[in-house]
Amino acid sequence: MFELRLEQGSLLKKVMEAIKDLVNDANFDCSATGFSMQAMDSSHVALVALLLRSEGFEHYRCDRNISMGINLANMAKILKCAGNDDIVTVKADDGTDSVTFMFESPTQDKISDFELKLMDIDSEHLGIPEAEYDAIVRMPSAEFARICKDLSSIGDTVVLSVTKEGVKFSTRGDIGTANIVCRQNTSVDKPEEATIIEMKEMVSLTFALRYMNSFAKATPLASQVNISLSSDLPVVVEYKIAEMGYIRFYLAPKIEEEEAEAHVETKSKSEAKRPIKPKPDVKSEVETNLEVEDSHMEPEVVNKPQLDTKPKKETNGEVEVMDV
Amino acid sequence: MFELRLEQGSLLKKVMEAIKDLVNDANFDCSATGFSMQAMDSSHVALVALLLRSEGFEHYRCDRNISMGINLANMAKILKCAGNDDIVTVKADDGTDSVTFMFESPTQDKISDFELKLMDIDSEHLGIPEAEYDAIVRMPSAEFARICKDLSSIGDTVVLSVTKEGVKFSTRGDIGTANIVCRQNTSVDKPEEATIIEMKEMVSLTFALRYMNSFAKATPLASQVNISLSSDLPVVVEYKIAEMGYIRFYLAPKIEEEEAEAHVETKSKSEAKRPIKPKPDVKSEVETNLEVEDSHMEPEVVNKPQLDTKPKKETNGEVEVMDV
Amino acid sequence: MFELRLEQGSLLKKVMEAIKDLVNDANFDCSATGFSMQAMDSSHVALVALLLRSEGFEHYRCDRNISMGINLANMAKILKCAGNDDIVTVKADDGTDSVTFMFESPTQDKISDFELKLMDIDSEHLGIPEAEYDAIVRMPSAEFARICKDLSSIGDTVVLSVTKEGVKFSTRGDIGTANIVCRQNTSVDKPEEATIIEMKEMVSLTFALRYMNSFAKATPLASQVNISLSSDLPVVVEYKIAEMGYIRFYLAPKIEEEEAEAHVETKSKSEAKRPIKPKPDVKSEVETNLEVEDSHMEPEVVNKPQLDTKPKKETNGEVEVMDV
Repeated sequence: MFELRLEQGSLLKKVMEAIKDLVNDANFDCSATGFSMQAMDSSHVALVALLLRSEGFEHYRCDRNISMGINLANMAKILKCAGNDDIVTVKADDGTDSVTFMFESPTQDKISDFELKLMDIDSEHLGIPEAEYDAIVRMPSAEFARICKDLSSIGDTVVLSVTKEGVKFSTRGDIGTANIVCRQNTSVDKPEEATIIEMKEMVSLTFALRYMNSFAKATPLASQVNISLSSDLPVVVEYKIAEMGYIRFYLAPKIEEEEAEAHVETKSKSEAKRPIKPKPDVKSEVETNLEVEDSHMEPEVVNKPQLDTKPKKETNGEVEVMDV
Repeated sequence: MFELRLEQGSLLKKVMEAIKDLVNDANFDCSATGFSMQAMDSSHVALVALLLRSEGFEHYRCDRNISMGINLANMAKILKCAGNDDIVTVKADDGTDSVTFMFESPTQDKISDFELKLMDIDSEHLGIPEAEYDAIVRMPSAEFARICKDLSSIGDTVVLSVTKEGVKFSTRGDIGTANIVCRQNTSVDKPEEATIIEMKEMVSLTFALRYMNSFAKATPLASQVNISLSSDLPVVVEYKIAEMGYIRFYLAPKIEEEEAEAHVETKSKSEAKRPIKPKPDVKSEVETNLEVEDSHMEPEVVNKPQLDTKPKKETNGEVEVMDV
Repeated sequence: MFELRLEQGSLLKKVMEAIKDLVNDANFDCSATGFSMQAMDSSHVALVALLLRSEGFEHYRCDRNISMGINLANMAKILKCAGNDDIVTVKADDGTDSVTFMFESPTQDKISDFELKLMDIDSEHLGIPEAEYDAIVRMPSAEFARICKDLSSIGDTVVLSVTKEGVKFSTRGDIGTANIVCRQNTSVDKPEEATIIEMKEMVSLTFALRYMNSFAKATPLASQVNISLSSDLPVVVEYKIAEMGYIRFYLAPKIEEEEAEAHVETKSKSEAKRPIKPKPDVKSEVETNLEVEDSHMEPEVVNKPQLDTKPKKETNGEVEVMDV
């Protein structure tokens, strides 16, 4: 038996809107730790990790670990039926093939329950070990979303360059070039408007704007976004969820064009990406990982995951290496 | 000569928006009683009846009864040109082939007149006798609209079940099932938020959500909707229009799937509907009907129409039986 | 070296939104007088003239006259990236093949620069001499936009008729006819709500609504629009831009249908237009024209341009006669 109750039902709606376009189907894992999900996007380039810790719920009960295979578009359809002030309860019996969503209006005059059929989904669990990042940028999430959208009208990729002074987003397209610089700014009236750079080393990495724009759909969840960058690691774009957890998006950098062109001279516009090699884990390992991450989570330098390189077979999962 | 003047011009705009997607062409009947319209939807499954009583207009003159055949999409186009605060005048001369809409801005600085060509439309007038309903639900119209929209994302039909405690809307689709219960609630601060059940007998009927969603386009006209249900009758979904009249939508229930499958075993998903058999009347009879309805209209248990079964030929109309 | 700086960056965004759907590519001319553009629409029926006088900018420097060939859709894409409160700087070096747009947020925390490649565009400069107009209508721009949009749902052309009492917009289509009269009204509380008619002679001219609707995209630039009409001249639809200049749209009237049908009996719906014959000038002449216009610009009866009939060759331009 698994049951969670969340008074701020709109939060689950926002979570679903943030990931439903990126991921088709995914296993949601329910354990004593919390409600979590990890999945590759449908083109196997980006990775999404969601955690909602058990302490964050008004009520949370999980007798034994269960994994629920869910089509995210369908779950989003159901959550759209919840009013923004509704109390949401999610419930599944052991060994059942469905999960129940219940929405109660604040006045209790309207009670809705939706039963969603579960699916069998092959999935690998990637162990995401801690990592040290060369630079971490914390900035207003709406600003980040705006910049990614604006640059998309000019080019397909963004070069993210971090210096002590600020972070620069650059692109290049048929019509010309664009550079947007956000300066470090810690002395703002509202903390959610701050732009804070933590930097050990200057870093400059190239990413597909298409994915950045997908990640930015999580903007309604958090007023700030954390972008963690290292030369040899996938970027982590993290949105904190209230007091409960986070959504993290991982994306491998593209090999910069000059570099790529040196090797692949026949390609005029290199689409090459540094490969992410996933390391599937059995579930117990993953939960341990999450706990370890939690205990190390610090206000400024949140989680330092690293996608490992040695794939392991998961119980019900096929190991899949990200598209490169 | 026929002329009506309505200071609240936005009301006619809302009426047109409520019915233009359901009905293509219809005869608008102008008599001493008022301005009325009755038409089957274009797929001949649902029936719409509109009444705006003469007393509700700032000015109303009707020298002799006329019937104006109008394409509703075109009338909606013209009414869209009216400002929300404009005074609307509708005018037709006897024996003319056009109707004139005049819009005056409150300051009288802008005067628009639109002449719309009339059409010859074959139509039957259904006599809708009074009926006793097993259950009448009065609830906030926006809530009803929201529920029909939400359920449409899950299934194609809705089962409406009324008990003393409340009304339940249920559906079932490929992804799962949904039940939404609205409890009776008469002790609300705002009367427009009440949900009131008047029930003689429990009733449970199945309807096509597509039509319910069409009916719900009348939501801007009234804060409450009245839903009248009986096992052997079409449902009546009624929106009151200010102090003037109403829009009523009639829809025959579907034969429930189990029942239908027992009879029609070759159909995997029964689309069978209980037939509505219209009884066309000559116009004078209809007007009498409307008057009778009016005189019986009571605050809580508004009109109890019943679609009669014996068709009569109308002067210019072809009798058409609703699609089943 | 050319550089202009505008604190009200949103103004340039609005200018671009006003013309980008009408004109594909155009030469922007930068001189001591100001920043100006003149171009035919892509179907060579309408003419757009933009002027932003140098005095209107916070900073304006133009060492020598330059003409920048720009794709307007691309320039609009870039300006969309400017925040509404951003300070905009436009910069081009002599002999360069690109122009730079710089956007600074009010707090200076975000600095964006966009480099747009310039194009070689063949263009003719039309000398638009002063003209006396039979009638000039000044009315709220939003009202004009609303009327053109409303009439488009009925017909394809609008007959603009001016009398001392007011201006009438008429159309006719398959579903019927429409007439909208705006009365002269000078005694309003807010000057931007006035409708003012200056008339020497009654005038009645027919125009394609499609173009009027395009012109109306400039509505956000000015609360009032000036419409200058003469029987033998293209209409001028003018939107003033703050203290800086204007956008003017020129459109030749259609030959009225009766008239046209008399001549072209085989055409059921005449599309004939009075031809505009452009007179390309060398650039120095044009600048003189602009200065002359400026010096003659008066508060009420702003510029009275007339499209001349004798084409001259421009240095880099092909002479093109407007489609008729």
